[in-house]
Amino acid sequence: MNIEVCYNPQSYSLFHNPNAIVVVIDILRASSAITTAMFNGVSKMIPIATVEEAEEYKKNGFLVAAERNGEILNGFDLGNSPFGYMNAKLKGKTIAITTTNGTQAIEVARQAKKIIIGSFLNLETVVKYLNKEKKDVLFLCAGWKNKFNLEDSLFAGAVATDLINHHGFKTACDSTLAAIELYKIAKHDLDAFLSNSSHRNRLAKLDLERDVKYCLTLNLCPVLPIMQGKFIVKGD
Amino acid sequence: MNIEVCYNPQSYSLFHNPNAIVVVIDILRASSAITTAMFNGVSKMIPIATVEEAEEYKKNGFLVAAERNGEILNGFDLGNSPFGYMNAKLKGKTIAITTTNGTQAIEVARQAKKIIIGSFLNLETVVKYLNKEKKDVLFLCAGWKNKFNLEDSLFAGAVATDLINHHGFKTACDSTLAAIELYKIAKHDLDAFLSNSSHRNRLAKLDLERDVKYCLTLNLCPVLPIMQGKFIVKGD
Repeated sequence: MNIEVCYNPQSYSLFHNPNAIVVVIDILRASSAITTAMFNGVSKMIPIATVEEAEEYKKNGFLVAAERNGEILNGFDLGNSPFGYMNAKLKGKTIAITTTNGTQAIEVARQAKKIIIGSFLNLETVVKYLNKEKKDVLFLCAGWKNKFNLEDSLFAGAVATDLINHHGFKTACDSTLAAIELYKIAKHDLDAFLSNSSHRNRLAKLDLERDVKYCLTLNLCPVLPIMQGKFIVKGD
Repeated sequence: MNIEVCYNPQSYSLFHNPNAIVVVIDILRASSAITTAMFNGVSKMIPIATVEEAEEYKKNGFLVAAERNGEILNGFDLGNSPFGYMNAKLKGKTIAITTTNGTQAIEVARQAKKIIIGSFLNLETVVKYLNKEKKDVLFLCAGWKNKFNLEDSLFAGAVATDLINHHGFKTACDSTLAAIELYKIAKHDLDAFLSNSSHRNRLAKLDLERDVKYCLTLNLCPVLPIMQGKFIVKGD
């Protein structure tokens, strides 16, 4: 039960392991939004890579979420804000979703055996699932346009710490060791630790501080979004 | 005077900045070997990417260093061990060099305005030079086969800390912030911090502990290897 952390989608092919469960992470905000949607009763989500596909789904009558650079694209129903998914009208619905980084990360991992979606909102649920499955784990950080970002790595570090300290997993991977060390410093106050982080500041400019605080809250949505064919559904 | 850190050569194009000085880092061991060679009087080095080119240089009568996966390739004069370059016979000589990661990093940065070679052995010299030049700085970590590694990031963190705290540089880059945080934890005992790191263990298996300890020693070789055309020479 080996753990690796891949800091950006571009590097995925270097880490691909046919036996690993891939945990896709885009804390700010795609994986937090997907976790929130599933928790609030959305039935299925369809991650798609391009805006063209999003337009196609829209034409075919789907609800469609489309975000680029932190903002909802014109003409679509939803964006990347978790608060948008706390809506009783979405219960039982299927939503197609495309985002700047998160859905791109899902895209590159399509060949993986199993893909789940991780966020601070479902941290404990992710740990329990990985511990039950007892397979290798590859954390795939969405990052920002293929650059490393702090918040995704911190989440990988949080889960890796728990799996290694309490459940017999191991690592020989430097990016995992770094994520663990960073989480050790940050865990007492994630919000303060991230105060200088690039994406946090990008969102602050868009007046999305409330989103950031929500996305950094642990275990608010104990649910496991898991890929099944082209759909994200609620796992057991 | 902005600072960025690129964790692996594959990501270089995302960070390329025509105004930046690129600091190529391959602590274990190419950049430490090059720094040692320059300090010990080697006149010029020619970084080359492939073993085929290395064979060509050899045929043409050059001294050639060729390392892959930690070991000297058969038929070549030198490898990656800094101790190999502490040899009076090499004084004034030109040496072509190809290594698993370090010379690949130099290769991808060829379009950069200026490339220097950084290692713990010349840390203060690198800081002084960057502070004198007052340009943007891009740290390019060689990593291990395009994966993140700890020791290269720690060096980037060490120099970035000094430039930001004492010389008015700034950063808005998450990989720089992470490198700074990691150096903060590691600086009191680099050797202990790296005890679990992947490449350190790779070298320990090859009985190269002495090389590792040497490469983690600060300021033993106050010299500045700098690219000038196809050559690495001693800067002012």
